[in-house]
Amino acid sequence: MLDALRELGRAASFGLLALSASAGLTLAAEDPLPSWNDGETKAAIVDFVSAVTSEGGADYVPPDDRIATFDNDGTLWSEQPMYVQLAFALDRIKAMAPDHPQWKETEPYKSVLAGDMKGLAASGKKGLLEIVATTHAGMSSEEFAQIAADWIATAKHPVSGKLYTEMIYAPMLELINYLKANDFEVFIVSGGGIEFMRPWTEKTYGIPPENVVGSSIKTKYEIRDGKPVIFRLPEIDFIDDGPDKPVGIQKFIGKQPIAAFGNSDGDFQMLEWTTAGAGRRLGMIVHHDDAKREVAYDRKSHIGHLDKALDAAPEKGWHLISMKDDWSRIFPD
Amino acid sequence: MLDALRELGRAASFGLLALSASAGLTLAAEDPLPSWNDGETKAAIVDFVSAVTSEGGADYVPPDDRIATFDNDGTLWSEQPMYVQLAFALDRIKAMAPDHPQWKETEPYKSVLAGDMKGLAASGKKGLLEIVATTHAGMSSEEFAQIAADWIATAKHPVSGKLYTEMIYAPMLELINYLKANDFEVFIVSGGGIEFMRPWTEKTYGIPPENVVGSSIKTKYEIRDGKPVIFRLPEIDFIDDGPDKPVGIQKFIGKQPIAAFGNSDGDFQMLEWTTAGAGRRLGMIVHHDDAKREVAYDRKSHIGHLDKALDAAPEKGWHLISMKDDWSRIFPD
Repeated sequence: MLDALRELGRAASFGLLALSASAGLTLAAEDPLPSWNDGETKAAIVDFVSAVTSEGGADYVPPDDRIATFDNDGTLWSEQPMYVQLAFALDRIKAMAPDHPQWKETEPYKSVLAGDMKGLAASGKKGLLEIVATTHAGMSSEEFAQIAADWIATAKHPVSGKLYTEMIYAPMLELINYLKANDFEVFIVSGGGIEFMRPWTEKTYGIPPENVVGSSIKTKYEIRDGKPVIFRLPEIDFIDDGPDKPVGIQKFIGKQPIAAFGNSDGDFQMLEWTTAGAGRRLGMIVHHDDAKREVAYDRKSHIGHLDKALDAAPEKGWHLISMKDDWSRIFPD
Repeated sequence: MLDALRELGRAASFGLLALSASAGLTLAAEDPLPSWNDGETKAAIVDFVSAVTSEGGADYVPPDDRIATFDNDGTLWSEQPMYVQLAFALDRIKAMAPDHPQWKETEPYKSVLAGDMKGLAASGKKGLLEIVATTHAGMSSEEFAQIAADWIATAKHPVSGKLYTEMIYAPMLELINYLKANDFEVFIVSGGGIEFMRPWTEKTYGIPPENVVGSSIKTKYEIRDGKPVIFRLPEIDFIDDGPDKPVGIQKFIGKQPIAAFGNSDGDFQMLEWTTAGAGRRLGMIVHHDDAKREVAYDRKSHIGHLDKALDAAPEKGWHLISMKDDWSRIFPD
């Protein structure tokens, strides 16, 4: 009986092979990273994945330990001319303004409503924290998720006029899928708000809520109108940036990644911690050097400031991803 | 060609059916919960899983939303006569004592070294926090994981003399596996220390580190001896108990569970939040009513105190799991 089953299995495999050949497909030769130009960067990715997945090889890593972490802003989607979450907060202020007539005369709201970014900047960290508190707290986690989901479904990028979720980097999406296909568990580790990202990361990147690490405000379990809710409080809980990215990874994942991808000095320690581990590791920095197809910025930019990590990259063995040279396209078609 | 493949598929299926019949197996009838006695509790579990996994059914839940959370102490393993993590802390004090001769004269260490639990209790919350800080902080997360792993590999339960990892509840392990086989994602949500549990939950329960939520102390990213580490600080970060269990679930998982399992009032809000959600939900309480095979305790016990949740169970629709009546065995053989 077993022999007969084996024969059937062989026959079925042969049928599938014949089918794919007849459809003109050669599965093994299909490029998992079609938006990446051939060159050192792409080769480094493929070599790394091949090394850690080759059973019996010196660099083999079992699937359970194949953890890869991605920054979000500037690494998976555009962060210029303004962090998307800041655009969200400013839009929320405008949407909430009719119920708060006093905002027309009160900073930082006055500047936001007037579209005066310099005025907002003048209100400093205190002003920004008030905007965050007003727009991100004072409702349940469920309500906030709905607000974020509704906003991201329609909000448009100020320059391209496209949906923000269309401003994601096609090559990075391919990279995520390539890693997942090789039994990596992929996490977002972002300075952005964890609950701002979770409503749309699954649909946009194929990364589920439980694989998102980010900044958070404090919350409290309460019964409201007879229903238990997680209520969002106007107090910072955790800023998932710089040296606190490894802290967030250890807290949420409990494993040291073997691959990490970022684009700014805020990712320095995540890359450092990841690539300092034993065995084969991969650290990569998306370098925004394509003024024509996106925006060129690094050392002098406040958003996505990349200076210290750019200097450290050669010594640390971190690869720079040149958007200009390494990517045949930036955004999905 | 496709027709031919379909034929082959049918033939292969038939072959498998014939094979299982010839081996005397009827796969559908195999009991996934053999340590559970037939009765209302077992039926409630099977009915729930059947309902939420029946595609097209009124109660169907897609796999991505099949989140189940389990308390650990008293729900997955024995917590009497002392929380396992407290036994760990006391053993650590004894192991560290030779390097701290002054402890012989200083509370709370003096009581711990003398095995005087009343003396330790007299040092109150402050004394206990000092024990936690001394034994859980002051090293890297990697070092602590090794200490916890080494301890759990050999430490014995004071009454049974068995390894603590042999004092897990066989029926609950079957339940975890049954849920996983039905595409549930299973998490531990415990008042215990997250980094104390992570080194052994995969091997013991099949639950990986990233699916463990628990209490934590603060940590800091640092370079020590040229190597980046997550250093553990003597300060409480989060106590994952009572109303903060739903907070921890929302923070770490970002989804509301559809099934939750606990054994004490510390699980009240986790059960309440889980079962208040829309659609079919399951909340269950392990009731320690088996003095013969384990320990009988509930309302009067300090450890695993079960009072408010016991009263609320009928109204909230939470099922009591009677260890005495519902389980044919308690521990794995």
